[in-house]
Amino acid sequence: MARSTPVSDSDRRAHSRTPDGRWKTALTSIAPNAILIRGYPVDEMMGRLSFADAVYLLLMGELPPPAIGRMLNAILVSSLDHGVTPPSTLAARNVATSGAPLKDCVAAGILAFGPHHGGDVESCMRYLDRGLIMVRGGDSVQQAAEFIVDDCLKNGHTPPGFGHRFHTRDPRATRLFQLAMELELEGEHVHMLRAIERVLATREEGGGSHLPVNVDGTIAAISADLGFAHELGNAIFLISRLPGLIAHAHEERSRQTPMRQIDPKDHDYDGSAERRLPEGRK
Amino acid sequence: MARSTPVSDSDRRAHSRTPDGRWKTALTSIAPNAILIRGYPVDEMMGRLSFADAVYLLLMGELPPPAIGRMLNAILVSSLDHGVTPPSTLAARNVATSGAPLKDCVAAGILAFGPHHGGDVESCMRYLDRGLIMVRGGDSVQQAAEFIVDDCLKNGHTPPGFGHRFHTRDPRATRLFQLAMELELEGEHVHMLRAIERVLATREEGGGSHLPVNVDGTIAAISADLGFAHELGNAIFLISRLPGLIAHAHEERSRQTPMRQIDPKDHDYDGSAERRLPEGRK
Amino acid sequence: MARSTPVSDSDRRAHSRTPDGRWKTALTSIAPNAILIRGYPVDEMMGRLSFADAVYLLLMGELPPPAIGRMLNAILVSSLDHGVTPPSTLAARNVATSGAPLKDCVAAGILAFGPHHGGDVESCMRYLDRGLIMVRGGDSVQQAAEFIVDDCLKNGHTPPGFGHRFHTRDPRATRLFQLAMELELEGEHVHMLRAIERVLATREEGGGSHLPVNVDGTIAAISADLGFAHELGNAIFLISRLPGLIAHAHEERSRQTPMRQIDPKDHDYDGSAERRLPEGRK
Amino acid sequence: MARSTPVSDSDRRAHSRTPDGRWKTALTSIAPNAILIRGYPVDEMMGRLSFADAVYLLLMGELPPPAIGRMLNAILVSSLDHGVTPPSTLAARNVATSGAPLKDCVAAGILAFGPHHGGDVESCMRYLDRGLIMVRGGDSVQQAAEFIVDDCLKNGHTPPGFGHRFHTRDPRATRLFQLAMELELEGEHVHMLRAIERVLATREEGGGSHLPVNVDGTIAAISADLGFAHELGNAIFLISRLPGLIAHAHEERSRQTPMRQIDPKDHDYDGSAERRLPEGRK
Repeated sequence: MARSTPVSDSDRRAHSRTPDGRWKTALTSIAPNAILIRGYPVDEMMGRLSFADAVYLLLMGELPPPAIGRMLNAILVSSLDHGVTPPSTLAARNVATSGAPLKDCVAAGILAFGPHHGGDVESCMRYLDRGLIMVRGGDSVQQAAEFIVDDCLKNGHTPPGFGHRFHTRDPRATRLFQLAMELELEGEHVHMLRAIERVLATREEGGGSHLPVNVDGTIAAISADLGFAHELGNAIFLISRLPGLIAHAHEERSRQTPMRQIDPKDHDYDGSAERRLPEGRK
Repeated sequence: MARSTPVSDSDRRAHSRTPDGRWKTALTSIAPNAILIRGYPVDEMMGRLSFADAVYLLLMGELPPPAIGRMLNAILVSSLDHGVTPPSTLAARNVATSGAPLKDCVAAGILAFGPHHGGDVESCMRYLDRGLIMVRGGDSVQQAAEFIVDDCLKNGHTPPGFGHRFHTRDPRATRLFQLAMELELEGEHVHMLRAIERVLATREEGGGSHLPVNVDGTIAAISADLGFAHELGNAIFLISRLPGLIAHAHEERSRQTPMRQIDPKDHDYDGSAERRLPEGRK
Repeated sequence: MARSTPVSDSDRRAHSRTPDGRWKTALTSIAPNAILIRGYPVDEMMGRLSFADAVYLLLMGELPPPAIGRMLNAILVSSLDHGVTPPSTLAARNVATSGAPLKDCVAAGILAFGPHHGGDVESCMRYLDRGLIMVRGGDSVQQAAEFIVDDCLKNGHTPPGFGHRFHTRDPRATRLFQLAMELELEGEHVHMLRAIERVLATREEGGGSHLPVNVDGTIAAISADLGFAHELGNAIFLISRLPGLIAHAHEERSRQTPMRQIDPKDHDYDGSAERRLPEGRK
Repeated sequence: MARSTPVSDSDRRAHSRTPDGRWKTALTSIAPNAILIRGYPVDEMMGRLSFADAVYLLLMGELPPPAIGRMLNAILVSSLDHGVTPPSTLAARNVATSGAPLKDCVAAGILAFGPHHGGDVESCMRYLDRGLIMVRGGDSVQQAAEFIVDDCLKNGHTPPGFGHRFHTRDPRATRLFQLAMELELEGEHVHMLRAIERVLATREEGGGSHLPVNVDGTIAAISADLGFAHELGNAIFLISRLPGLIAHAHEERSRQTPMRQIDPKDHDYDGSAERRLPEGRK
């Protein structure tokens, strides 16, 4: 699958303006009563494309094949919410308790998608690509994976995409890998991630800590195999988590008293008990 | 269709803490290797629910019937992007040109969803509800619609949900109404919006300016009929437009030179020519 | 002291563009090697004006008399920081723990200056002005103050500018009033605030809760007497608190481990013991 | 002058919690009716310390000597505003035109302080320190300066702190250097910056482009000589520019029509003509 190549600075300058000095955009054209997204009338897209399909079209320029649309829906569902303890959720709730409008809570939450939270998707994509460049240069996948693991560990970092505060076996990662296999979308980035996982398991047997692949790593590898640019990998996490930020800000604003001090440990879940999807839902 | 009633302040206090002083959340429960969103294991949701279905579940607490899932997908597609001129897009691009990371551009864009931009969804939901309260008090829909129009116009406001800078007939509004009818999801808020539209048309014949219903008004009425709380109407617009903010920030960062002065009028579209969805796409 | 009058919408349109269709700004003119802020060369201001003087010049258009410059310095010092528990500080720290850059932490903190936190300055200015309009209409200051208190209490609100989570006698409010008196800057807004304070004290004797004037109320009254527009009252709080947000974000980033769960109650102060300013410092 | 040393990760962990598991803060202690900033009662600081002095105290832990207080006031005045064209100002104005509250405009503006805008202060501090490490290792200042210039230019970067879109001789830089000399605050970072300036001038004679030292470079060198940590250098720029963001957002909200398209080139200045500070103002 073709990967969008980074544009060099000189190319960028060359293409950024027409000869008459106007700047260009290739996303959406607007004329009175006509909105074309990547060439398709938005009203024709409505009711015919899922939101995930439309997101792919807008970001990548072309409609996704059905398998990719299904994969992207699953990726977007995977990180929808992770309870009250992530820093992004707490930032959103702390803004909400001051009485600020919903959009302000959400913006603050997004700002907390820093290097240690969500940012892993982009970093993981970058080192998977570094590994693949080694492979193209003649190394084996195994050698590249060992190099990456050593490079991270010697700098005192957990490899991005591995390990989790709560989960020893991230159910979202497992399910995404399974879907990628079923939909025949596994590519070289998934293989590289799997190789790194195996290297880490060997190290663990030798006394290292347990570092299972997590949802960020899986999103990174699959997004890269789908052809997303590095920074768009992060964007996919952002789209996925936005409804979670909204739901928490709304719950804070509608259910809690204002100006409270939010202790992330001092809470109980009082929502629906565990339940299964109805049979009709595939 | 049951509408979530606003919670009074005393109720809110009563329910916000358990007797042991801990605070409560009803959205997502997290245990090692188990993430339940509104009771459903997230890994079971992945591959079985569209992102729009999952968003509805998270925000409303229950799975949507298929018609509502389809409607919500269409609503989320409707406002995906509107080119380079909305203030939110320009805020995001101006942050991007400074070299700031993608998430910062997106957060700045979201902050521009102020009263005049996106905020119309919430205001429109509020006045539709005001009209419906009048109807329950004995007024006709026509009387309520006339009251609302007069109330807006005498304060010098365009009724929120009507009029557009570019479009005289917003293709997104037309398509959303058509889908709501096909999917049998039209309810009292859509009828009230239609009544207001008719009153405005009469005024126009009498010399008023042309104020067609726009996409914000249509999203407001349909979201209210689906049972979303006022501030969640705005949230739906926010989820819909996020990919647009991402796409513009990414295009700015990858295609333009940094620290440029962005003139919103001085640009050309150089993307795909107009095209139709393939037959297979319903 | 003359108060900047709100500009009507028609005036606004009249003045916003020159006849040749260009838009106007009256703040700062930039030419090669020459930066004039409100007409003064910035390099001439440097070393001659305090930051507070320069802020007054930029926001109000003229240099402040020395007494106002001293008052504004005191106001800006008053709200510099309030420890780790305000929601703005917690929002900033939660963004910091994700590894986000300092400016992102600060932006998130600013978003938490909602209606219940900082927003009181603006609301207080608005109701002081409402009281003064009543006085100009023939009511006594006492009558206006009683009306305002009743109006707030019957809607279940604490009057903005009164009451504090921690302090029964806000030392910042006391000191600001003392300085306003010493510097002969007390005006009608301070008198109105004092009258409201007296009405609240009477109610308290009659069984109401103790609602002392707080720092927000004092800043509101003094800023209004200095002639600041309502929304600039809030801005002054924002300028004052920004270094606090910076200090907490920096402390979080440099002293704590990343991705920690920040409990606002579970902390100790381990900084300098109480000390006095040296004699030389006036 | 002692420089705050970066804390190692293991130190950080050691000091971040007391033995009883509570976390620590050294900034401000809050007790009922008593607010101590770095040990000093805030009400004692008010009226006795300038805002700049108080900012130094909060960020650095101790009161500044008078010369440093005066220098910091000048630094904070230097970057107060730079007209309508910086991306941060345009981001703030684009949020303002949507009707969003002032704080949202300001937060968006701050997000635009990216690597190419404001971020130069931090990068410049970092490479000045890199040069000084070379000097401590035995190189001459001249050798270190040449190494830095070559390193930047060979990577196609302008050295951070040099060059300006508008100014060939930045009047703010000149004045800051003059004050640092007068106040006897020049230190090794200023000397290193001057050495780099001389190297660049030589290159210019040899055909390079003219890259004068700019205000960011000067703030970086002086702040470093005052002992500020790298990321606090950026923070000082942020404090300085905040009133500019506020003034532009307020002007946009009060003087322009909402939802306008803001062209950064299409404007005129219609404020005060050039004028001099009165004699009394030192």
